[in-house]
Amino acid sequence: MYGHQSTRLLPDDFPQFFERAKGAYIWDLSGGRYLDLMCAYGPNLLGYGHETVDRAYIRQLESGDTMTGPSKIMVELAESLVELVSHADWAMFCKNGTDATTMAIMTARACTGRSMIIRAKGAYHGAAPWCNPNILGATAGDRADQIVCNYNDVASLEAAVELAGRNLAAILAAPFRHDVFVDQAPPNPTYAKRARELCDETGALLIVDEVRAGLRVARDSSWASLRVSPDLSCWGKCIANGHPISALVGSDKAREAAASIYVTGSFWFSAAAMAASVETLRIVRTSDYLERIQDLGDRLRRGLNAAATSHNIRLRQTGPSQMPLFLFDDDPELRQGFFWSSQMIQRGVYVHPWHNMFLCAAMTEADIDMAIDAADGAFNALRLHSGVLPAVKQLKRPSELRSTSEGKSVEH
Amino acid sequence: MYGHQSTRLLPDDFPQFFERAKGAYIWDLSGGRYLDLMCAYGPNLLGYGHETVDRAYIRQLESGDTMTGPSKIMVELAESLVELVSHADWAMFCKNGTDATTMAIMTARACTGRSMIIRAKGAYHGAAPWCNPNILGATAGDRADQIVCNYNDVASLEAAVELAGRNLAAILAAPFRHDVFVDQAPPNPTYAKRARELCDETGALLIVDEVRAGLRVARDSSWASLRVSPDLSCWGKCIANGHPISALVGSDKAREAAASIYVTGSFWFSAAAMAASVETLRIVRTSDYLERIQDLGDRLRRGLNAAATSHNIRLRQTGPSQMPLFLFDDDPELRQGFFWSSQMIQRGVYVHPWHNMFLCAAMTEADIDMAIDAADGAFNALRLHSGVLPAVKQLKRPSELRSTSEGKSVEH
Repeated sequence: MYGHQSTRLLPDDFPQFFERAKGAYIWDLSGGRYLDLMCAYGPNLLGYGHETVDRAYIRQLESGDTMTGPSKIMVELAESLVELVSHADWAMFCKNGTDATTMAIMTARACTGRSMIIRAKGAYHGAAPWCNPNILGATAGDRADQIVCNYNDVASLEAAVELAGRNLAAILAAPFRHDVFVDQAPPNPTYAKRARELCDETGALLIVDEVRAGLRVARDSSWASLRVSPDLSCWGKCIANGHPISALVGSDKAREAAASIYVTGSFWFSAAAMAASVETLRIVRTSDYLERIQDLGDRLRRGLNAAATSHNIRLRQTGPSQMPLFLFDDDPELRQGFFWSSQMIQRGVYVHPWHNMFLCAAMTEADIDMAIDAADGAFNALRLHSGVLPAVKQLKRPSELRSTSEGKSVEH
Repeated sequence: MYGHQSTRLLPDDFPQFFERAKGAYIWDLSGGRYLDLMCAYGPNLLGYGHETVDRAYIRQLESGDTMTGPSKIMVELAESLVELVSHADWAMFCKNGTDATTMAIMTARACTGRSMIIRAKGAYHGAAPWCNPNILGATAGDRADQIVCNYNDVASLEAAVELAGRNLAAILAAPFRHDVFVDQAPPNPTYAKRARELCDETGALLIVDEVRAGLRVARDSSWASLRVSPDLSCWGKCIANGHPISALVGSDKAREAAASIYVTGSFWFSAAAMAASVETLRIVRTSDYLERIQDLGDRLRRGLNAAATSHNIRLRQTGPSQMPLFLFDDDPELRQGFFWSSQMIQRGVYVHPWHNMFLCAAMTEADIDMAIDAADGAFNALRLHSGVLPAVKQLKRPSELRSTSEGKSVEH
């Protein structure tokens, strides 16, 4: 098993295969049922097997899906997305989040006639050779035109811009720090604003990669609340509630450049996932899904804090509460994280020891309370075993998945 | 509109959007019905809206599609594909054809510890920066480790291998020449065998890109009939009859390297398209779909030849008859091609003036005879207008879509 759904880097008792998914739950091949705090690593926003979204998919499939041209639903979807995302004047659709981020840097390079991209060290922007966290199989050329800075560190961003000189095509940023293995962090407003200013000063484009966070933290680009408008933003995962589609949207400034590059894919014009996305975005616009997952996230965070404290365990919960990451203090080898996650899965709650999680709108307060109960038991077990936690053989080192070569670094 | 489904480079009367697709036919938004000789640029192998394939998709969707791990159907699909493709010992699944070709070169680079890839000038292997036919948005680094040779030209292949020296990671080849704007050509068996030998001599991997041709020319790797086994082959488009999935398969030699690279995507483990692919491969194994589309292709080729000859028009039909390309003699600006294709669309047959086409198993002899009738009328119109054909304003030059920079060329 390869990629982000491999259990190779998870505790041994994590099931690799699943039989069924419905609402907030997944079932493994032995019938074990789990409250799923991973939500398919993001795509499950409204609940697995969502009735009206899946019905929209099937209805479109029955009239036409992958055809010799797109359906008119493509225009409807583009209009929905442009209406939702305040900086967007146009939209292009693709399949993978990586397609969207790759199209974004191509658009920026075509727009500026320059090549250099600045991105933050440790940030995940996909699994193509230019951005893959594991450089095996990539060439030096794939990453030659990149500079890495430190997220939220204005001085390091400015140094990177200085280093890029007149060759800066784009600053590519995650909406908040959601790297693996380290605490999540909200965007420093000064950093976000400075990124916008530096792009304006140099003529480079600002790209925000919303693939992981989009629609879970806002009904708009994540930096809209900071009053920072990117030129391009990348969307994927949950924009069709699990059906395969991703998107690049942009402002008029980037329109001509986006139209000039040649990007395509066999299934990029398939209509069924677009119909599912139109319905997902309708629910996003008209329901309180966002407030509900925020409330559920807050409830979970409070409950876990109380349970951890009662067992004298220091748990760090970071990131937006609806996209939480749990790390334990004094746990450099993740022994506590792996043991506790294993205890949770045994209690019917799927959590992740080093990747951020995701809440969905199909969860209820009762589900969250059940997770808190499970956590209480897992914390208790952790306390009882604290002196004798097994080593985590899955991870040679926690940095295993971090990039060992991300282009030029301003720290060098 | 972007990518391969844009009508920007087609005659003005080609519809951009479609309302419906069923069997061998597509309907535009005005209710115009067309026998579709493009088959969605390949994905439609068994007929649009295929009953048992779509039922398999929907059934799997109802139990679980994009989940926190794959379904066991992934193993079933891998076994089906490995059983079908004689050189394959393992399979990995992704979404775009480009995902599969990119994974192939990454695997070859990880396997050999070298970087250089040899591919044929003008061959299409996807739309990522490393292989895009339009270099806008790509950097020099994206293509630094490639050498282009001429397809079917043994001396040029040998010169490319010589140039790569000890840095050769892979030879990447299309199963036959299916470039745009030029006659298609079958693989020269000497060329294919020499590619294999050169890989064996140098320790490089041989990759055959079956994304466009796979399952339409054989129930195996396309070069199996030449007794040439690649180490890796790339599949996509029609392997789930239009549902979004692609694949990389490989031999044991490449297994460890394929497992070592980090490649992934939000929807690469989605189960519904895998269920559709299992059913598609079952039909591929157990039905005469291949012989039928070959017979239909031969019938079309004979009919078109007779009709063209009767109007004293010199039409070149190249490629396997089930993946035909039509080009006219003495037509450097494609005036005849555009005029004739326009006449065909007006007669209810969707053909393409410069890209190979695809037949599907839902076509009948009556459909083919209708297409031949339409062609007869279109040839007649072409003859009547031969002196006054309008210029093709869509194409600045027919080479517009050909790569202007494909890495080092052995011709330089």
